[in-house]
Amino acid sequence: MKVLVVGANGQIGKHLVSMIQNSDNLEAKAMIRKQEQSAFFEDLGAETVLVDLEDDTSAIEKAFDDVDAVVFTAGSGPHTGPDKTMLIDLDGAVKTIKATQLAGVKRFIMISSFDTTREAIQAASSSFAPYVVAKHYADEKLRATDLDYTIIHPGLLTNDAGKGTVNAAPTVERDEVPREDVAHVILTCLEEVSTIGKEFQVVTGQKQIKDAIKAL
Amino acid sequence: MKVLVVGANGQIGKHLVSMIQNSDNLEAKAMIRKQEQSAFFEDLGAETVLVDLEDDTSAIEKAFDDVDAVVFTAGSGPHTGPDKTMLIDLDGAVKTIKATQLAGVKRFIMISSFDTTREAIQAASSSFAPYVVAKHYADEKLRATDLDYTIIHPGLLTNDAGKGTVNAAPTVERDEVPREDVAHVILTCLEEVSTIGKEFQVVTGQKQIKDAIKAL
Repeated sequence: MKVLVVGANGQIGKHLVSMIQNSDNLEAKAMIRKQEQSAFFEDLGAETVLVDLEDDTSAIEKAFDDVDAVVFTAGSGPHTGPDKTMLIDLDGAVKTIKATQLAGVKRFIMISSFDTTREAIQAASSSFAPYVVAKHYADEKLRATDLDYTIIHPGLLTNDAGKGTVNAAPTVERDEVPREDVAHVILTCLEEVSTIGKEFQVVTGQKQIKDAIKAL
Repeated sequence: MKVLVVGANGQIGKHLVSMIQNSDNLEAKAMIRKQEQSAFFEDLGAETVLVDLEDDTSAIEKAFDDVDAVVFTAGSGPHTGPDKTMLIDLDGAVKTIKATQLAGVKRFIMISSFDTTREAIQAASSSFAPYVVAKHYADEKLRATDLDYTIIHPGLLTNDAGKGTVNAAPTVERDEVPREDVAHVILTCLEEVSTIGKEFQVVTGQKQIKDAIKAL
């Protein structure tokens, strides 16, 4: 099964492509924005495809050639302004959802924010609220499709080494979670069809990732 | 008929409240963000209601007490950043749409941007694109409701005195349009039920506003 990783050059994306390439049944296609980002993925033996999420839906759709599943883990990142939040986290996500539908691909895994409810928007600080709004509408768009989606809501992302264990449920207490463990959770969702149609929060915890995901 | 004007303190909003107060069959309720904005509307004999569009839907819904129609002409304005574009132009609009539905009000007039199509997002400059994205999704949300909506797409807004004449059609050539004429167009849409379910672009032109709107 070939997995298009949208946002492959992000920190979660890099962990994920590496894990996919080391798995038995999956292979990754890394969607990247710049040619100079390709070396990392070529070293892993992963295919790359150059697409800018600010391009139109048809440009994004071209990346779906020969793809069986998509993971959206792109993020405008902390160093860009809320203009990119609008163009990448919201509109880039919605265009990717549309491209997935146009390409006839069914499986879509969305890396969302920990809490994208209406209440979370109201509770967010003024600097964080635009991001929560973007993820709220992107999640809502995905839920309204007939795609085989899973929406993952990770806690506060850290660069700590993955522990291989998490706490995952529709709602959990807010906590940190290593990006490496999030990538592992995504990989597990790709392997576990039981996660289709589900969404859950995930933070660091005591349960083996495979067990935590199967128990959802 | 009482009309809730959301964004009453904006330039179009002020023209509109004034026109409504001078009309025979309509009265305005000016939704404003700050108490110190109220004097202008009190001088016109218009009711005011204090609501911040960053508040939650239930706070916005309270403004709908005794209201028969709503005009959304709020805008984050040119002096705020794209964070406010997300929170006001997109999320504020969507919350207003939901509040309208919760309040059981049917008539909704949206002041959109000239072109909010997917193509317009792609063609926009990087600084303008976030605004087009916000208006694109807000318009899309409104179309998906069963509200009696009209979506007005004005051209480049100017502070020129209104001419009383415009060019209005589903698509027209891009041009300027005085804010005062846009307010006049809104007033006419409130009076003309034939505009329900329609959306159109409007720029300065040669046709009397009432005739232009009736001909849509």
